[in-house]
Amino acid sequence: MSLVEYLEDKANILRLHSARTTTKAGSGHPTTCFSSAEIVATLFFKEMKLDPQNLDYLDNDEFVLSKGHGAPLLYAALAEIGSLPREKLETLREFSSELEGHPVPRLKGIRVGTGSLGQGLSIGLGMAYAKKLRSIDRRVYVLLGDGEMAEGSVWESINFAGKLGLSNLTAILDMNRLAQSGPTMYGWDSEAYAKRIKAFNWAVYICDGHSISELTKAIGEAKRSRKPSFVIAKTVKGKGVSFLENVEGQHGKALSREELEIAEKEIQPRIRNVDFQPTNFIEATVPPKKIKSELAVKTDYNPGDMVATRVAYGKALAKLGGQNENMVVLDGDVQNSTYTIYFFEGFPNRSLQCYIAEQNMVGAAVGLQTQGFDVFLSSFACFLTRACDQIRMASYSRANLKITGSHAGTSIGEDGPSQMGLEDLAIFRSLMDSIVLYPCDAVSSEKLTCLMANYGGISYLRTTRPRTPVIYGNSEEFHIGGSKVLRQSKSDEATVVAAGFTVHEALKAYERLKADGIRVRVIDCYSVKPLDEEILKTAFEETKRIITVEDHYAEGGLGEAVASVGLMPRILAVRKMPHSGPPEELLAEQGIDAGGIVKTVKEMLG
Amino acid sequence: MSLVEYLEDKANILRLHSARTTTKAGSGHPTTCFSSAEIVATLFFKEMKLDPQNLDYLDNDEFVLSKGHGAPLLYAALAEIGSLPREKLETLREFSSELEGHPVPRLKGIRVGTGSLGQGLSIGLGMAYAKKLRSIDRRVYVLLGDGEMAEGSVWESINFAGKLGLSNLTAILDMNRLAQSGPTMYGWDSEAYAKRIKAFNWAVYICDGHSISELTKAIGEAKRSRKPSFVIAKTVKGKGVSFLENVEGQHGKALSREELEIAEKEIQPRIRNVDFQPTNFIEATVPPKKIKSELAVKTDYNPGDMVATRVAYGKALAKLGGQNENMVVLDGDVQNSTYTIYFFEGFPNRSLQCYIAEQNMVGAAVGLQTQGFDVFLSSFACFLTRACDQIRMASYSRANLKITGSHAGTSIGEDGPSQMGLEDLAIFRSLMDSIVLYPCDAVSSEKLTCLMANYGGISYLRTTRPRTPVIYGNSEEFHIGGSKVLRQSKSDEATVVAAGFTVHEALKAYERLKADGIRVRVIDCYSVKPLDEEILKTAFEETKRIITVEDHYAEGGLGEAVASVGLMPRILAVRKMPHSGPPEELLAEQGIDAGGIVKTVKEMLG
Repeated sequence: MSLVEYLEDKANILRLHSARTTTKAGSGHPTTCFSSAEIVATLFFKEMKLDPQNLDYLDNDEFVLSKGHGAPLLYAALAEIGSLPREKLETLREFSSELEGHPVPRLKGIRVGTGSLGQGLSIGLGMAYAKKLRSIDRRVYVLLGDGEMAEGSVWESINFAGKLGLSNLTAILDMNRLAQSGPTMYGWDSEAYAKRIKAFNWAVYICDGHSISELTKAIGEAKRSRKPSFVIAKTVKGKGVSFLENVEGQHGKALSREELEIAEKEIQPRIRNVDFQPTNFIEATVPPKKIKSELAVKTDYNPGDMVATRVAYGKALAKLGGQNENMVVLDGDVQNSTYTIYFFEGFPNRSLQCYIAEQNMVGAAVGLQTQGFDVFLSSFACFLTRACDQIRMASYSRANLKITGSHAGTSIGEDGPSQMGLEDLAIFRSLMDSIVLYPCDAVSSEKLTCLMANYGGISYLRTTRPRTPVIYGNSEEFHIGGSKVLRQSKSDEATVVAAGFTVHEALKAYERLKADGIRVRVIDCYSVKPLDEEILKTAFEETKRIITVEDHYAEGGLGEAVASVGLMPRILAVRKMPHSGPPEELLAEQGIDAGGIVKTVKEMLG
Repeated sequence: MSLVEYLEDKANILRLHSARTTTKAGSGHPTTCFSSAEIVATLFFKEMKLDPQNLDYLDNDEFVLSKGHGAPLLYAALAEIGSLPREKLETLREFSSELEGHPVPRLKGIRVGTGSLGQGLSIGLGMAYAKKLRSIDRRVYVLLGDGEMAEGSVWESINFAGKLGLSNLTAILDMNRLAQSGPTMYGWDSEAYAKRIKAFNWAVYICDGHSISELTKAIGEAKRSRKPSFVIAKTVKGKGVSFLENVEGQHGKALSREELEIAEKEIQPRIRNVDFQPTNFIEATVPPKKIKSELAVKTDYNPGDMVATRVAYGKALAKLGGQNENMVVLDGDVQNSTYTIYFFEGFPNRSLQCYIAEQNMVGAAVGLQTQGFDVFLSSFACFLTRACDQIRMASYSRANLKITGSHAGTSIGEDGPSQMGLEDLAIFRSLMDSIVLYPCDAVSSEKLTCLMANYGGISYLRTTRPRTPVIYGNSEEFHIGGSKVLRQSKSDEATVVAAGFTVHEALKAYERLKADGIRVRVIDCYSVKPLDEEILKTAFEETKRIITVEDHYAEGGLGEAVASVGLMPRILAVRKMPHSGPPEELLAEQGIDAGGIVKTVKEMLG
């Protein structure tokens, strides 16, 4: 019995930490911690193979707290296994503490940010897939709340993990019946969850989530399953404190000092201080992978070759794949449009067809990169908006993630607005420390892809559907925060700042204006974030007028980026309701073609 | 037999239209139209109760083409029922045609935009719920592709419709086995779909999707089910044209002229021109609802009252609910945080708890508004990013949708960045014809909520977690595109443009600067989109310097909006990695508090 008693003790110790630290912080979610206490104690002190001193090593079992508001419990567990000083727990939610209100990877043992519900299972799926790729015989445990089971993203992951048959993935449902505003959809109906999950080819085990013996049995059986496994643990929200158990309206409320005192008096006597040596601790031997950061691609194009930037992106991926065995590429059923197909064909073992499920794709990518893989993922720019929240959270996960959105802008033409990415620059610019790159030709597309490969944070590449002429020589160099001055003279009267598809419109406008005796500077602003402020400011000083032109909505795009550094551009962008039609007519309608540029320059010159 | 033969004829006529129009357009997805031809013929000429001349009336059955790339087939059906001139089909995908590459509601019979996969079922769910709310005994049919079954959003809807028991909702799966880049996850394994869907409390019927008799039997049984019903129709992609049937690599490719000729020779002889009178056409009697647009709210606050804008929003909802019986409010399990709870308590029959499933919530709202409801929906601002793609598509649906994001900004404090909406202004500004409002106190929050109620497109309200003092009198008036000059003098040396929470920081900064002998103008820019350009430009001319201050990332927010009209603001915004802590410390760290404003003004004045 001593193991069970020991784990019961640990659960109550975790409860005490959770109650005390949230009361000290004056906010937090103690009742959700209480319902998970036995689950987390069983995992951290019996089931998970862990090296408490080296939780960043890759041959640990992994734990993802999908129900991120249970953070205090996770911090308590990390302290109790000796990975974190216990006194650190006191700093919960303070300004200078790594112990934030919801987990972020500022501590060993926490690899990703959670707290936007429904994302943890996709991340765990990516981790489990990564362990298999690395032939590391370790498991991934994901703790979910029952409220988040309504999120479609969870079902994307259940579906895909079932398809992949990821036997090293175990999800545990803390079925405590109560969400924030009231009961969950299915309350304590464990069969309601079980039949749904089983239908997706998972092994399901139902147990009392406060019974250590039932938990160890269920998790033990889950380990032996050949399928991914889901443990449905029936729990009580607020468990262990009489006046909080199964009470509505207690979500996200810290206990008062007086309540804490009563709670302590209830919990403390249950702790018998059983002496027991946990057997799940290991000495890890696989250190985290360092990112290889000096990759290069050589190109072999001729000026004027008509090549879509998306095709060049695919070619660059294939070249990089040969240099970097840690590189993995994900796509959501559009490999033959984004041109990740070149990588898929060259490196099938490091390619993952994620089907039409962008949220799970991004989550899986975040999971993969925690295991030292360099992950590229691609879809149409517009469909990346489906995973906007996952991308937002990836930035709080400090993820190393390379994302490419193809088919950007009205230049896709006849397929119409549902397929046009017109807000992707705004979304990707808004991510903390992101870089946003936008090539106009095949050479720059390949070189910018290589810059992404060497960048350690979140990078975004925007590619275009139609073919565009090669304008750069193969030896041209590009860098993050750079730009290219394509045309200039001492008599420039305005500067046209373009990127991607509109660079070619700007060059056409240049010729027409020149024929009318008007000289303009043309800048390819291929690094939309960070901007090449120096070159742009010089151009503004020298030519007095800036026109930006972009195949994107005005809001949050290239024009506003240039405006934000004080250069007062005239912003040419997509401002009318987009629709189907030939690309050239659509660009003309929006005033973002050569004609629109010529007209604007002439207006500005009066 | 003549009905069956008649429907077979119709299917082949739809096929012919689809082939011819896509070939003429030079692009499109004929093979996906071919696989759905019998399904659509059966629906439009037998099963659906339709008034071809009044498809906008509410007592029609509804059809949602979730697989939006099948648009040519839908247009063909609308032409064949007589709702659209046949010659109009020839204009498919042309610049000036309403027959876009993917459906948009520019034709009667098309109520929403589709083409981003996995969204149609949530819209259909909203329509079906709306029919029940209106006691209109009509059904909603949603045609899905099998590729999109991987989207979690589909499972959110399956889950929620099953929970609601929406017996007037029938989904039909065109299980043609092939997605864009290759086979779908489950190919022709109809049982794989059936067992998953059944687990969610749906009735499931499996049939041959090219057999009219099997289709009519399955759809007939579906009609009699007390549960929502899913018809799994096994089909062949490219059906009806020998060289296209079940062939990979034919997705999204129009036939060449030569291929079309062969296809026509194959299809044409099958059409026997059976004479038959469809019995499903009706005379509709319930015209579309007009939006009531002169609602008003009265407030009763005292200056200095401490009230969170989210609370005031909830109060306004309750007031508006009493005036407008078409008003419906949706929330995703955070009613007690967004304060929609006031409406939920007052009008339970017009309130819908959507649980933690934001994608489905937005889709359902889009569906509801097609039936003449004025729909408000709310969540935390950060969690609306989960439905970014649905919100994007809502703008192409020309939806009348009122969205509120609460808990915006770092001012939420200790919960940390996963819960902070810091990119919502960028996302909502980027929507075509949207308005973006941001109240700073309870009076403006109620009045702006009322402006949303009276606006016919997509509107967004950004609310704040902490309480803020009331600064406006109860008779103050607000309008879309307006602003309030809160402080001004003839000796103003700079203008501080704030919105929401930072208005109060700007007012504090005003006092401190005034004590130092520096006068600044303070503007509450409560209408972030459209901007009050006139007031802002006057301020710029008169004070020479503009500082914007916002609790949002710099990209795409208030500052860039002001910069985009040429006012060269110094933009104070969230630029460092956000984290947990007390709100005042977080705002100070980001330089968006009174101290940051004072410092910046002094720097600018040198």
